[in-house]
Amino acid sequence: MTLFDNPSTALRAGMRRLAASVCVITAVDSSGQRQAMTATAVTSVSDDPASLLVCVNRQAGLYDTLSQGHRFAVNVLSAQHAELSQLCAGSATGEGRFALGSWGDSSGLPYLRDAQAVFFCQTARQLTHGTHLVVIGDVDKVLVADGAVDPLLYADGRYRSLNPED
Amino acid sequence: MTLFDNPSTALRAGMRRLAASVCVITAVDSSGQRQAMTATAVTSVSDDPASLLVCVNRQAGLYDTLSQGHRFAVNVLSAQHAELSQLCAGSATGEGRFALGSWGDSSGLPYLRDAQAVFFCQTARQLTHGTHLVVIGDVDKVLVADGAVDPLLYADGRYRSLNPED
Repeated sequence: MTLFDNPSTALRAGMRRLAASVCVITAVDSSGQRQAMTATAVTSVSDDPASLLVCVNRQAGLYDTLSQGHRFAVNVLSAQHAELSQLCAGSATGEGRFALGSWGDSSGLPYLRDAQAVFFCQTARQLTHGTHLVVIGDVDKVLVADGAVDPLLYADGRYRSLNPED
Repeated sequence: MTLFDNPSTALRAGMRRLAASVCVITAVDSSGQRQAMTATAVTSVSDDPASLLVCVNRQAGLYDTLSQGHRFAVNVLSAQHAELSQLCAGSATGEGRFALGSWGDSSGLPYLRDAQAVFFCQTARQLTHGTHLVVIGDVDKVLVADGAVDPLLYADGRYRSLNPED
């Protein structure tokens, strides 16, 4: 193994080996504008209350909306959504991030109709650490795909998928 | 898609489709006993300070040690570590969790020599939400494997790996 001493370089090098599912966080800002942002820092927190967390850079367009406590949805992308992920990761802005994919509306929140799963959340707690905001959301509704379990993954700086032979 | 209304059932059903890398968290308790616990709720938080977070059930053996602020290591498992993961997920207890794998010691913390990466952390912040403790750790040292990027994944209730054809 190689030892990295500079913490930031080290974190990035090590995290290339932690594969993560790719999600798109959606919300609606105070002016009614839909927002979407790709995120891989998403995990479940607790069964009771049913909750998950997302980490959002304080420079992100979605930061203001989430820090103000607006509701949000976590859309777990499917393996075919790599191009949509790129759009929501920064190659488009504002409403342009909804140019690909089939987006629906549920209780006023945009969601991706062919996502692996969609978690609808109410902000429960927030914590700022360094460059990022950690938002814990209580989950009040979930849509789950009926087809194969085939999420889009990100590892080693590129998009991946599950090995179908496992 | 199927709509789930019971939040806990819904969260579990949706999370089966969010593939995650499998990690083993290690620490040493106040009496000097080594501890290990399998966890998939691990994400990076911030580049500056370099930090990550782990979510730990308050019923877990590791809970007391982490809540007391002891240092910990996050070992990102490799695809061949499924059996070791099972051991550290509850099929063994205490020192028995170190019965498989090649464990080293770095500054007093156990680490897995053939992990994909090992992050050594000092607890920075903690937050309790429902059944779980969220621990944010500042990363001061990282070991990164030199070989192929091939983490052990967990999705749909079983162990998986990355598709080598991507």
